This record gives sequence, structure tokens and C-alpha cells, in this order.
Amino acid sequence: MSTEHTILRDEATGLVIDLGSADLTLVDMSAALDAMAALEAGSIANPDEQRQVGHYWLRSPQLAPLGAEQIVACWDQIEALADQPTTDVLLIGIGGSALGPELLVDALAAQPERFHLLDSTDPDGIARTLSRVDPAKTTVIVASKSGRTVETLTGLQAAQAHWARSGQAFGPSAIAITTEGSPLAELAADWQAIVPVWEWVGGRTSISSAVGLLPMALMGIDHRAFLAGAAAMDRWSRQPDGPAAALAAIWHSEDKPSWVFLPYADRLRHLGRYIQQLVMESLGKSHTRSGQAVHHGRTVFGNKGSADQHALVQQLRDGPNDVLVHFVDVAARSTPTPLLLVAADTQLSLLQGTRSSLDKASRPTLQLTLPNCSAGSLGALVALLERAVGLYAELRDINAYHQPGVEAGKHASTALITELAAIQSALSGTPKTAHEIAVALEIPTQTAWRLCQHLSTTDRARCTRGSTASEDRFSRID
Amino acid sequence: MSTEHTILRDEATGLVIDLGSADLTLVDMSAALDAMAALEAGSIANPDEQRQVGHYWLRSPQLAPLGAEQIVACWDQIEALADQPTTDVLLIGIGGSALGPELLVDALAAQPERFHLLDSTDPDGIARTLSRVDPAKTTVIVASKSGRTVETLTGLQAAQAHWARSGQAFGPSAIAITTEGSPLAELAADWQAIVPVWEWVGGRTSISSAVGLLPMALMGIDHRAFLAGAAAMDRWSRQPDGPAAALAAIWHSEDKPSWVFLPYADRLRHLGRYIQQLVMESLGKSHTRSGQAVHHGRTVFGNKGSADQHALVQQLRDGPNDVLVHFVDVAARSTPTPLLLVAADTQLSLLQGTRSSLDKASRPTLQLTLPNCSAGSLGALVALLERAVGLYAELRDINAYHQPGVEAGKHASTALITELAAIQSALSGTPKTAHEIAVALEIPTQTAWRLCQHLSTTDRARCTRGSTASEDRFSRID
Repeated sequence: MSTEHTILRDEATGLVIDLGSADLTLVDMSAALDAMAALEAGSIANPDEQRQVGHYWLRSPQLAPLGAEQIVACWDQIEALADQPTTDVLLIGIGGSALGPELLVDALAAQPERFHLLDSTDPDGIARTLSRVDPAKTTVIVASKSGRTVETLTGLQAAQAHWARSGQAFGPSAIAITTEGSPLAELAADWQAIVPVWEWVGGRTSISSAVGLLPMALMGIDHRAFLAGAAAMDRWSRQPDGPAAALAAIWHSEDKPSWVFLPYADRLRHLGRYIQQLVMESLGKSHTRSGQAVHHGRTVFGNKGSADQHALVQQLRDGPNDVLVHFVDVAARSTPTPLLLVAADTQLSLLQGTRSSLDKASRPTLQLTLPNCSAGSLGALVALLERAVGLYAELRDINAYHQPGVEAGKHASTALITELAAIQSALSGTPKTAHEIAVALEIPTQTAWRLCQHLSTTDRARCTRGSTASEDRFSRID
Repeated sequence: MSTEHTILRDEATGLVIDLGSADLTLVDMSAALDAMAALEAGSIANPDEQRQVGHYWLRSPQLAPLGAEQIVACWDQIEALADQPTTDVLLIGIGGSALGPELLVDALAAQPERFHLLDSTDPDGIARTLSRVDPAKTTVIVASKSGRTVETLTGLQAAQAHWARSGQAFGPSAIAITTEGSPLAELAADWQAIVPVWEWVGGRTSISSAVGLLPMALMGIDHRAFLAGAAAMDRWSRQPDGPAAALAAIWHSEDKPSWVFLPYADRLRHLGRYIQQLVMESLGKSHTRSGQAVHHGRTVFGNKGSADQHALVQQLRDGPNDVLVHFVDVAARSTPTPLLLVAADTQLSLLQGTRSSLDKASRPTLQLTLPNCSAGSLGALVALLERAVGLYAELRDINAYHQPGVEAGKHASTALITELAAIQSALSGTPKTAHEIAVALEIPTQTAWRLCQHLSTTDRARCTRGSTASEDRFSRID
């Protein structure tokens, strides 16, 4: 396609958005923009949970209908906490409490190797991470909005044991980020500090809260610049002809089931995972707000553009035309040596060449160019994506701010813990087959077998192999 | 679904595959299995490039129609190279020469921080990686089958400059992996060694060649066990009722456009990216082998199961029913402390609970359980996936072994370098608009603008901002 592209840009953020040759007039954005204005003014934009949606206030506290005081006080608290000798940082958190900080620290920290993350309950992963953490020189951040996230509380206990083994007091090293009165707040009563988040901040949009700001501040990243970049993007993208409305309109009119994000900057290698959660948890919904079954969603993927070319471009060009391709580019590349200038030319040619070959194959593409890889630019990028997701959800009549499917999974996992205990009680000295155990407990055979096998590999049951899995026999080890 | 699941397993690999309640008899696999047998016997399975497809021979040299000698000689060479004092390793490679080694080293090395990777031409990324590399204690592996991969040759030059700055001779530190007579082989004539790969090994299936084996051997990973695990899986999965045929049959009959892989083991966090290339580059094709336009493909994504639950499960359960979910599990988890045993129970409950909640929402799921996270298990897993992809491609009449779309992108990128040079020549002391430059060079305005902007941010052009991007004016800096 040699059609002229629409290019949006502004001075304050420095971002440039090349929207390709899509026709921006096809979608009426006015109702979506009105709804977003109401959300920013404090409407109950998440009706299922009867909650306001306030992440835009986190960078423009003067707009918060609740008043700016608590947000500004939190900023002051973060500055005070960051005003201590440089240490390593161990973040314990998962989902929205991990993906944003991981993106920001890897992209922006001078010494990202000083940052450690516990974001799973894999015992081997926990042990491997803690083996690199020296309690004597590490500040721990434990982030859970609800204060009851099972992965986070598991990681917390493992960290406390690691501190105890080394004879270091845990509390003076630790800072909690949670809502007032949560179980985590109770545990953290004698820690170094408790920094607030609020009910009106969703996990996947908490990057502008203490969840993003405190790790940045402790890792020496200019968190004020991040907030300023996000606020500048908010100002630009509140405009009807701004980039968030344009992005949402194109997402809507192109109507592709998948979106890939290809950042041609190694520092942005976690961007795709961050956007994956922001988009898929916000837009993957069974029903519209008015109750119509839709089973809507957008599959997001993408790692690092240059490497992804080798992995993905074959299919993006020749496969199903079901992906909207987002190139992410950085304008100012540091090229201190002549060889690195050659590398910069090559990098740009790979991006533009790949885009051109997709254009020729009539595959829709966009290009987001950051002025540089700085805290301000990342703040602007995040703010653009947050608002575009919200506007797009309005176009589809979707509640972008709840996650009923995640809650269902949590309930099922809790049930599994109960089943594991029931199996332990049901085992005896007499070997029983997985099938017999399943029938007795009224659970599927494959579940009974997998749980028994787990008890066996963790030395809590004895297994005698049968000819099939369901005929494996298990007995108690006393 | 409380239907009984089909569970396949064997003693040699220890892998267990729970295929869910899918009906395996729906797909006739016999022709695909025959074609795979012919491929293993040396047929020209990649007719477009007139090539044999020999990655299965790499772990069973006695089956190679070309004779076992060169494969076994390569193993001996790798053992000899690994028999030197432990050093750091810098791997320079991209795509198939990077994703496999990255997966294996992160999963299996005792000290993964000794491994460094240059897999892009981002000058900032190159500089950041090299800043952590000490030439005095690092062995460099440069891997490019063709020996002309632009990203790899760019990284090589940057590494050579880094060695020169530190006063270390590069050649004695460096080992090339490439085909005989390639440009890289020429450059490497006086290096420590050149280790061969062969035309009949595709990049995305090169993990069992020196590309995977040499990094493993240098990082202290048991590469022989990897080969043995892969060979054992090959033996099992050659059987008509083996796991590769079953997986291919389910992929075919479920017919979902996307596949997600959720490994519930932190060590497998790069698995999804590895499979992404293996699948998307193999199956994303515009035409069948018989010339029918199909635009086939399967979108692959997934990072780390526990974290992905928070990001993806909302959409996987409530969104479009367009994803086949692959849970990847590890049976034996190390639980040296009581707290880590609790973590292991929690981890299993999260996996099984999530699977159960997807089953209840009628979303199709599979579960692959490795006996442990070892080199042998990873060899078996890789071999299973390689063969399942090949069998599935047979069912769809697709050439899984070429990549014409990637070649198209490479040509377009080369053209861009030419255009960049043309713009540099066209710039003069008199400022011209991006639009004028585009018209003169007969390229799209947005391309001319982006290239001019790049010259400006790298101090090779002066920019005067216009009211729109196409009205920005650029002149030469003398």
C-alpha cells in the first residue's frame, strides 16, 4: 500500500503514532469519549464491583474527585523511602503487581541485576530467586492490593524464612503496598512502612500507583518523570483527535482477533507481556455490560521485534490475516561508536523493511515511535494504551475493569487444595487405584491420579505402577 | 467435562500426556506417519529448497542415510571444546540460533548469569550486553547456518571491537557454528574452532545440533542426556499410537487458531517463545504444497503459567473459544523445606484448578507433565513438539520446512538500507520536506520521513519541524 499514512504527534510527549492507511472517520468515538470523561470525573465505571476507576488520577491528583491529598501524601512517602542508601530490591507480587515493575526496571534501571522478583509459587523458582538475594543488603517490597493473594503470601513466607536463616530481622527490610485494613497490612504492622493503594486502582492499571513508583524510586529510576509523561499523554489523548481515540477506532474497525506488539528495542522486551495482561484481562469478557453474550477478546503477543522477525514474520505475512501488527520504535538511539551507528541503521532497516513487506501483503500495521527509552516515554506509552483499551471497551460495551473469570479460577484452585487434603485422608496402608480414589471422592480420575502422583513425588504416598495411569495404586506412607 | 481423559506415558522418557477428552480416532494419521518415515529415511521433504530434513538424525546418527560419521565427529569436537576451564559464554545468534540455547541455559544451567546473548541489532541492547562481558574470561559462540545473517554479523563486529578495546585477541576466544564454506567460516579461519551444521538442519529445529549442544556443554549442562531424551521420545513417538501422532491429531481436530503454552515451572519461562518460532515459522504458510492458497497458521503464546493465570485466564475462560490450552507441568518438584512443600501444593492447585475451570467452560485443554526439569526431559519435550509439528503439517499438506515470508522481509530490509543511502545523497544544504524527498525517490512519505528523522537523531541531518510530519524539512549536515 503506497497510500499516505496518518501520523499523529505532539511536542509534550514526543510520541509519534503512524496509523497506517486506516480510515479514522469510520468509527464515531463521541459516546466513548463522553464515558471516559465521566469515568475520570468519578462515575462508577466498574458497576459489577461498584467501584470507581481512578488510575488517571494517580498522575493528575488535582482531578481526583476524592481530593489530591492522599495521592500526594503517598508520593511524599515514596520519596522518603527512596532516600536511603542504595540496596538490592526484592519484589514479591504477581500479575499487575509484577508485570509493570518488571517492564520498567528492565527498561530503565542502570543496574537491573539489583532487582529480584518472586512472582510464582514454584518452589524451585522461589529457591532459585532467593539464592541470589542477600538479606543484609536488600529491601523487600510486598505488593498485593487485596492483601490476600495466595502467590504473594506464599512468596512472603519463603522470604521471611530466608531472612530468618541468615539471622536478619525481616520487618526493618520490608515495605508493604496494600489497601488499608487488608490481611497484608495486618502482617506488616511492624515493617518499615505500609504504602497505600486504593480500591479504585485496578491491578492491571496500578503501574502509576506505588506498585510502579516505589520499585522505580528504589531502583534509581525517575518516577516523577514517568508520572509527568503519563500526565502529558493523558492531556493529549483526552482530545477527540488525540491518539487514544485513534488507536481505539482502528482496533475497532480493523477487528482483528490478535494484536502483536514488536518493540525494536531490547529494553522493551517485557512490553508485550505487560500489554498482554492489560488487554486480555480487560477485553476478554463473556458478556457486554447490557448482558448480551459476546465472548469477546483480543489475543496479545510479542517479545522483541528483531528476534520476533525470525519467529513470527513468516506467519504474519503468509498466514491468516488475523493479526494487527504494532511496531514499537525508538527515535533516538545511542550510537557512541561508528559500528553502533551501522547497527542502528540496520535495526531501522529491519523494522521498516518488515513493515513494508507486511504492507505489501495487505496486512494492517501501526507504528508507535517513542522519542527515547526514558521513564517519561514509558509513562506516555502506558497512558496511551490504558486509555485506548478503555475507549475500545466502550465501543464494545464491555466492562474493562472486572475479571470474573480469574475469580472462578481462584475458587477452583482453592477446591483443589481441599481435594488434595481429602486424598491424603483417604489413603491407607492398602493400595487403591487412582480410579477407586476418584470414585470415592467424586472427582475426575485424571485429577485424582495427578494429585496422588504429586503426593508420591513429595514422599507423602507410595505408588505402584499399573498398566495405565488410572490403574496406578497409591498407599499412605506412615 | 467429567469425561475420562486419555493419558499416554512411557517409562523411557517419563513424560505423561493427558490429552483431555478429545476423540483421537477422528483423524487418520497413517499417511502423515508414512511421510514422516520417508523424511527420516532421507526423502526431499523440503522440495522448495530441494533439501532433506535431518534433525531427527542428530540424536540417532545410526539412522542418517548420509552415515553417522560427521554427526559423531561433531559430538567429539564439542566434548573436546567443553574440556577447558569454566568461562562465561557469549552467544551471538538470532532466531533458531538463539531461542533454543536461551531456553536450555535458563532452564538447566547452575549459573545462567554466566550466559550472555547478542540477538538483535539494537545498538543500545548490544552495548548493554557487552558491558557485562569480560573478554578475559568469556568464550564466544557465533552461530549462523548461512554465515550471512545480518544481525549475527553485526553482533560479531561489535564483539570484536569490544575485545579489541580490552586488548584481548578475539580468535582464540571464538568458536563459529556454520555450514562449510560460508562467509562466517571464512571469517573464522583462525578462530579456536569451527563446528559444523549442515544444510539438512533447519534453523528452528537446530537445537539438537551444535547450536544447542555447544552452549549446553560450555555451560556445564549434560548435553548427552538431552540427546538421549530426544532419541527416547523419537522412538516412542514413531509409534502410531504414540504421543506425537496424538498431539497432531488433536491440533487438527480441535482446529483452534491459537495455542497457548502455560509452563508451571519458572525455569521454563522461555518455552513459549521457543515453541512460537517452531510452530509459527513452520505452519504459517500461504499455500499448500500442491499450490492451493490457504493462509494457514497457528498463533502461539505463553510465558510462565503461574503469572499467565493473572494475565490470560480471564480471556481464556470468558473470551472467544479460539485457543487450545497446553498446560506444562513438572512432576518432581524439589521441596527441601516444609514451606516449599506448601508452595508445591499451591502451585499444583493453581494449575489443576485453572485447568478445571477451563474444562467447566468447555475450553479444550491438554497437559504435558515432565518427570523433572532435566536435560533429558527437555530433550524429550522438544522432540515431541518437533515431530507433532511435522505430522500436523502433513495433515494440512503444508511444507513445514521453508520460510518464504522471512526471505521477503529480508529483501525489503536490504532495500531500506539502499533507500537510507539514497536519502543521504539527496539531502543538500537547502531544506526539503519529507514529502518532497519521498516524491523524488518514489517511496512512501512516511518511510522518507522516518528515515530522515533517523538521520536527524543520529546527527547526519538537520530537521526543521513543520506543522505535520510530511512538512518537516531536512537538510544535510556538512
